[in-house]
Amino acid sequence: MTEMFKCVPRVNYEGPKSKNPLAFKFYPPAEKLGGRTLRETLRFAVSWWHTFCAGGADMFGAPAWSRRPWHSPDPLTQGRLSCEAAMEFMDKLSLEFFCFHDRDLYPDLDDPEKTEKGLAEVTATLKALMKETGTKCLWGTANLFSHPRYMHGAATSPQPEVFALAAAQVKKALDITKELGGAGYVFWGGREGYDTLLNTDLALEQDNLALFLKLAVAYAQKIKFKGQFLIEPKPMEPAKHQYDSDAASCLAFLWKYDLAKHFKLNLEANHATLAGHTFEHDLAVARTNGLLGSIDANQGDLFCGWDTDHFPTDIHRATLALYEVILNGGLAPGGFNFDARVRRGSCELDDLALGYIAGMDTIALAYKTAYRLHQSGELEEYRQNRYAGWRKGLGQKIKSGNLKLEQLARLAAKEPEPQVPSGRQEMLEAVVNRYLVGSP
Amino acid sequence: MTEMFKCVPRVNYEGPKSKNPLAFKFYPPAEKLGGRTLRETLRFAVSWWHTFCAGGADMFGAPAWSRRPWHSPDPLTQGRLSCEAAMEFMDKLSLEFFCFHDRDLYPDLDDPEKTEKGLAEVTATLKALMKETGTKCLWGTANLFSHPRYMHGAATSPQPEVFALAAAQVKKALDITKELGGAGYVFWGGREGYDTLLNTDLALEQDNLALFLKLAVAYAQKIKFKGQFLIEPKPMEPAKHQYDSDAASCLAFLWKYDLAKHFKLNLEANHATLAGHTFEHDLAVARTNGLLGSIDANQGDLFCGWDTDHFPTDIHRATLALYEVILNGGLAPGGFNFDARVRRGSCELDDLALGYIAGMDTIALAYKTAYRLHQSGELEEYRQNRYAGWRKGLGQKIKSGNLKLEQLARLAAKEPEPQVPSGRQEMLEAVVNRYLVGSP
Amino acid sequence: MTEMFKCVPRVNYEGPKSKNPLAFKFYPPAEKLGGRTLRETLRFAVSWWHTFCAGGADMFGAPAWSRRPWHSPDPLTQGRLSCEAAMEFMDKLSLEFFCFHDRDLYPDLDDPEKTEKGLAEVTATLKALMKETGTKCLWGTANLFSHPRYMHGAATSPQPEVFALAAAQVKKALDITKELGGAGYVFWGGREGYDTLLNTDLALEQDNLALFLKLAVAYAQKIKFKGQFLIEPKPMEPAKHQYDSDAASCLAFLWKYDLAKHFKLNLEANHATLAGHTFEHDLAVARTNGLLGSIDANQGDLFCGWDTDHFPTDIHRATLALYEVILNGGLAPGGFNFDARVRRGSCELDDLALGYIAGMDTIALAYKTAYRLHQSGELEEYRQNRYAGWRKGLGQKIKSGNLKLEQLARLAAKEPEPQVPSGRQEMLEAVVNRYLVGSP
Amino acid sequence: MTEMFKCVPRVNYEGPKSKNPLAFKFYPPAEKLGGRTLRETLRFAVSWWHTFCAGGADMFGAPAWSRRPWHSPDPLTQGRLSCEAAMEFMDKLSLEFFCFHDRDLYPDLDDPEKTEKGLAEVTATLKALMKETGTKCLWGTANLFSHPRYMHGAATSPQPEVFALAAAQVKKALDITKELGGAGYVFWGGREGYDTLLNTDLALEQDNLALFLKLAVAYAQKIKFKGQFLIEPKPMEPAKHQYDSDAASCLAFLWKYDLAKHFKLNLEANHATLAGHTFEHDLAVARTNGLLGSIDANQGDLFCGWDTDHFPTDIHRATLALYEVILNGGLAPGGFNFDARVRRGSCELDDLALGYIAGMDTIALAYKTAYRLHQSGELEEYRQNRYAGWRKGLGQKIKSGNLKLEQLARLAAKEPEPQVPSGRQEMLEAVVNRYLVGSP
Repeated sequence: MTEMFKCVPRVNYEGPKSKNPLAFKFYPPAEKLGGRTLRETLRFAVSWWHTFCAGGADMFGAPAWSRRPWHSPDPLTQGRLSCEAAMEFMDKLSLEFFCFHDRDLYPDLDDPEKTEKGLAEVTATLKALMKETGTKCLWGTANLFSHPRYMHGAATSPQPEVFALAAAQVKKALDITKELGGAGYVFWGGREGYDTLLNTDLALEQDNLALFLKLAVAYAQKIKFKGQFLIEPKPMEPAKHQYDSDAASCLAFLWKYDLAKHFKLNLEANHATLAGHTFEHDLAVARTNGLLGSIDANQGDLFCGWDTDHFPTDIHRATLALYEVILNGGLAPGGFNFDARVRRGSCELDDLALGYIAGMDTIALAYKTAYRLHQSGELEEYRQNRYAGWRKGLGQKIKSGNLKLEQLARLAAKEPEPQVPSGRQEMLEAVVNRYLVGSP
Repeated sequence: MTEMFKCVPRVNYEGPKSKNPLAFKFYPPAEKLGGRTLRETLRFAVSWWHTFCAGGADMFGAPAWSRRPWHSPDPLTQGRLSCEAAMEFMDKLSLEFFCFHDRDLYPDLDDPEKTEKGLAEVTATLKALMKETGTKCLWGTANLFSHPRYMHGAATSPQPEVFALAAAQVKKALDITKELGGAGYVFWGGREGYDTLLNTDLALEQDNLALFLKLAVAYAQKIKFKGQFLIEPKPMEPAKHQYDSDAASCLAFLWKYDLAKHFKLNLEANHATLAGHTFEHDLAVARTNGLLGSIDANQGDLFCGWDTDHFPTDIHRATLALYEVILNGGLAPGGFNFDARVRRGSCELDDLALGYIAGMDTIALAYKTAYRLHQSGELEEYRQNRYAGWRKGLGQKIKSGNLKLEQLARLAAKEPEPQVPSGRQEMLEAVVNRYLVGSP
Repeated sequence: MTEMFKCVPRVNYEGPKSKNPLAFKFYPPAEKLGGRTLRETLRFAVSWWHTFCAGGADMFGAPAWSRRPWHSPDPLTQGRLSCEAAMEFMDKLSLEFFCFHDRDLYPDLDDPEKTEKGLAEVTATLKALMKETGTKCLWGTANLFSHPRYMHGAATSPQPEVFALAAAQVKKALDITKELGGAGYVFWGGREGYDTLLNTDLALEQDNLALFLKLAVAYAQKIKFKGQFLIEPKPMEPAKHQYDSDAASCLAFLWKYDLAKHFKLNLEANHATLAGHTFEHDLAVARTNGLLGSIDANQGDLFCGWDTDHFPTDIHRATLALYEVILNGGLAPGGFNFDARVRRGSCELDDLALGYIAGMDTIALAYKTAYRLHQSGELEEYRQNRYAGWRKGLGQKIKSGNLKLEQLARLAAKEPEPQVPSGRQEMLEAVVNRYLVGSP
Repeated sequence: MTEMFKCVPRVNYEGPKSKNPLAFKFYPPAEKLGGRTLRETLRFAVSWWHTFCAGGADMFGAPAWSRRPWHSPDPLTQGRLSCEAAMEFMDKLSLEFFCFHDRDLYPDLDDPEKTEKGLAEVTATLKALMKETGTKCLWGTANLFSHPRYMHGAATSPQPEVFALAAAQVKKALDITKELGGAGYVFWGGREGYDTLLNTDLALEQDNLALFLKLAVAYAQKIKFKGQFLIEPKPMEPAKHQYDSDAASCLAFLWKYDLAKHFKLNLEANHATLAGHTFEHDLAVARTNGLLGSIDANQGDLFCGWDTDHFPTDIHRATLALYEVILNGGLAPGGFNFDARVRRGSCELDDLALGYIAGMDTIALAYKTAYRLHQSGELEEYRQNRYAGWRKGLGQKIKSGNLKLEQLARLAAKEPEPQVPSGRQEMLEAVVNRYLVGSP
């Protein structure tokens, strides 16, 4: 293979004092914490689309990144070269996993046969390279949002013919994901929502979405695909309103259609914040319901109302998220997929590496900080004490369910007004800061 | 009874040409539409708190409304006078229903016995006046958010003693609501959420909230309270994050804890918009799941990020909401409670009437517009045609569940790429406008 | 010329009872109000880019609109055909004006000579067709945001060479706009801002932006271009933060650099709302400072945080905006440019006409409503009375500037606490509604 | 003086390893950086209102904080005791400065004489205590937003009588601020805006606001008050729209009315973020125009749309703000006023200290981080290089103003397309993180 990232050497861990932009400052992959290496715990994945497909266009601007070495007017050539580029990039950055859409590997040429053949060939190339290099697939997915046929929805299209085409695409994407040993399969329904309620049958569309997912589950069982299924909430964009708008709406959906035994959530920081929640909130909602499956690691610009997909660099916000991951006992078989892109103005080839370094360092640092914080017990002990009343006496009785409302009322009348202690928010925020700056 | 609203005569319907501020322009209570009078369909309710308790304070300003005629330093006197004021106001404005918190009738004096006695006396006064005047109670509720003991939650307090006090308060509020013949009982959990996740056990708190609701249901059954139970979503304020954040999160909650058979949703326009949804969205989510129970009629300022509780005057937004109500087959036993307040600067006594007139006229006009639009079939026919494919051929087969993913894929491969027709959003928006300006 | 919009007949005014989607319901172009026809007052313009260039792509989707009749792989052919398409479309919809970017007519081919030649040829074609059909140019502009060279800014680029290229492009765009008799010339600085302050010299960049505008003014004077210059605020997108973020920041900029004598503001509804202001607010800010020049007519989805550029269909919001236009004495030599696009799902050719009809009807209706409201004096008289104190007695004295702070303090001490009357917000909102539904 | 904060010992610097909640971890007041102690540079101030007046009420909740030791039913007693409490608190926390509203010291009793006398007595007490303890006044202000008379504005009231009362109050507040040796005087116009444009004369109101400020300036000159004048932007709340909505709108206002020579800006983090700007943006806008005067240190919850006034604990956001302060050469005679309040649930007396410790530690840490970052030159050198082209060759020529647009166009045509280098956003964000975690 010809080297494509000539400007990017192998990226080593040089520690926090290094000023070498192309070195990790906070991510020593082989360092162990809690019995496992950071590499094993974090399961970092490269997002194929942002890294090997995107050209730096935005809604007001043409592609801005001069031709990448793997670009080619021939889709097959580009597909193969991008596999080689990916392996080189992952190797140089110690990235073990990748995530992909079917269309990242080979475009929809509006010639089904040629498209299928091209996709098969690129998949074969990729599989061979994976064997050679040891890279792995975190999850695959089908792109059911770019093609014009999906403009009104894929599984939620008003047209059964479009539903069928989406089904065909998912079948193929499942085949490929299995072929590549994918640890998961994701559904993000960018078009599964509406642009205006005026023309929309919201109930029928959601019934169809559930049916679609059930068909996929059945097929996966048939082909013995063992990866976990995930759905991914986002409130809007491209649709004006997407049905799976946040973690809670996903729970409602999974429970309504009895799908919670088959699906977990793939949560993305920027999607949570677009929905008006902190990322740690949506993580906690999924975690406490046993449904936190995997993470799309990025961050949004809270001053811009669209999906900016920044590489995560806010160590404060990242630490609060990683604390939830620790409470969840990790993410495996999920992982941290960098659904993140360098800014359009970061137009040089090495910016891709700089973006990943910034993101991986941030997540690793956040993990180490959250780990120390959790180990210290400073938060957990506070919480234990705060709710201690529910593990004894009156609290225990209430939890047992043996006290009726009227009995509780009588009990309450006999007791003096309880003292309500402080919630100590400012003190606890200061505790987090002590760990963030690495001092204790 | 002494007249208190001397500045407000009986408010009559004078039609759209009237320039009399103290007349209805669009709300003729006795006019029939679809076999029922507007009064019967809309079931307008006055909100006791905004109308007879509020003093015009805001976060930066002292109470701004000069003393109302029913104000008194003695809570019992004020409680009784406000009942008289309410009857007069409702009579003059043809308002049939009211909604109330326990604390609207009588404050918590931190002397349980005196508080209970005072509340009982005001309730008795109110009951007598209701009998005399024919007014009705749409729903009651307990104020579980103002007292400092609830600062960390009521049903979700870390302290069982606070849970017990909240239970006692709900028991009493249920007793009173039954006594007053309330058609419903609402839970809005302003403190049932968190200010920081750092000190919060989200799972325990939600379990307790569900337990609390179950205790209330059991007690209602015991006392044979026949009204419907409602929960009311709001994403934040006063809590940083409230568990029941929008309609979808309420569904998740009700389904998780098997409470959907006992509860419906009381949806508020301003709460939906704070959650990032149009009001019609949250109405549609509740409606299509059979859980739309009642409405808190108001509107939010979309440029201010808090609960502004304006009287609804945006006829465009109101019409889209009322269309959902029509699709729901009305709201009874729920209704339209004006959880709305005049601006602080609307400081004169007659502003209360002007606010209600503006709101009632808007909802009535929106209902009439939505009714005509629905009767015309212009939207419904469009929708029927749009989804026609699901009632025949391929669509029907898919819905039957007999086609597997792989069969669908094979079918799709045989067919030509389907033509995708326009969703006609601009045309449909223009259709709505034709009805809004009263032309067709 | 071959007919290209075969699906669109001449669009006539059929009045509000018409159900013909391809007819005006509220816009009778020749109807007079206040001595001028609606056509003369409103000065509707088609936006070339959204109408004849856009293909229905979005950030997650490929172009969705099947080939338009004027599309061609050859840019010169497409340029000429789009001129013909525009003339036909404008004629059928009674659109007198158009607005354009240089790059709408001919793309930047990265071959300056060929680009210049192509642009000249299309301009010549357009000029000839304008003469033939009587269409006019409301304003022209240079696209200084799409080409990758502008990724870090055009006038605010860190590179002087990019500034020079932008200057060259503006010179040429000014030449063309003059050639086409443009009534104005607009600067919208989509890239004149920053993505991160970390790499930005905000002061230098704004100095350069002002210098750039001064060079353009001098050149316009040299070539005797008589159109008005306009700058257009937008807070963000594509930049993370744009310097001209709202009307007020534009005033600050124009005053700081002594440019207010040369520039007015071109205000866009969706830009104002993205900046957190109602559109009428930004209009009032510009108007009361004598700087309201022209309007980009559209509306944003207030639940989506990006520039959605909907056709305006909210008659309530539009009426409040048109009221400001009336207070401004109209817009000429500016006008209403529909910087609006049909939704991606409105994929058929006639949707373009349906979008314009919806928008033109809305603006016309809003104008007629605002006109009647203004004529009635209901708002103006209220306002006159409310501020009457400033035209006599104490108010007059204060305004004269002869009372010092300490004198005012002494005067105030002598007077009793003034009664503060209501601001009557709810009453006034109800007044607007009476006009909106066309009754008085 | 009796000790009032018995639960709060003297708060010492114990360094980052200390787990003592009542110790500074990052703020060693006497440590020198750049030749000045942190205490001298940061000029921390206590906000009287949040600390010694607030009772823990919110829009949905009654005062939640059990009686503070300085509370008293008699306003004079409370005024004096709160002075003593303030001195003790400031002493224990090494807080040198305080900021105050006139009404914080003594309420408006609707009896002007009694009010004036009470205010004078508390002021005398405070002055004596200041002399004794060495505390200083950073700035004073008049509360022109709480009293109902200001419900429609103070300087912008429709009633001249209200303007006069506001003038009287400012006169007195200026007298007191001078008496107490205040280093500044602030105008925050919470009611200087509107609730609806329908009843508002925006131009007249802003003219009056400017006139009001001029009267204050003249009076200050007369009494030889030497402190700096400051205006403070906030976009909304309590008004629906405040005229001084952000830094840029303040510049426009000051320049329009020729007030920029008398006023600087007092910027608050939470106000900037409510306006849709990062705090560092508004700081940069003020700084680069020579108008950054002082800071209200706090942070907003970006997921809540109101002024939450949290103590600043986000070290990442604080560092970016402090970097601007360093570029400004510090803030003196301004400083950091903690316009911050502990959460309602932080109801115990020592929470006040815990809040200040969290805030002071955060700002001190942010300052030290920003200082090291600035000293390193890593950002500044990058920026210098990025804009180097403007200090030589073509850039220098352009800046000189001798090149006309047409000359620039000719020059541009001769040169090859320039290479546009990366803006390196991800790399620079990673640089900041290296400094944040204290490693280099």
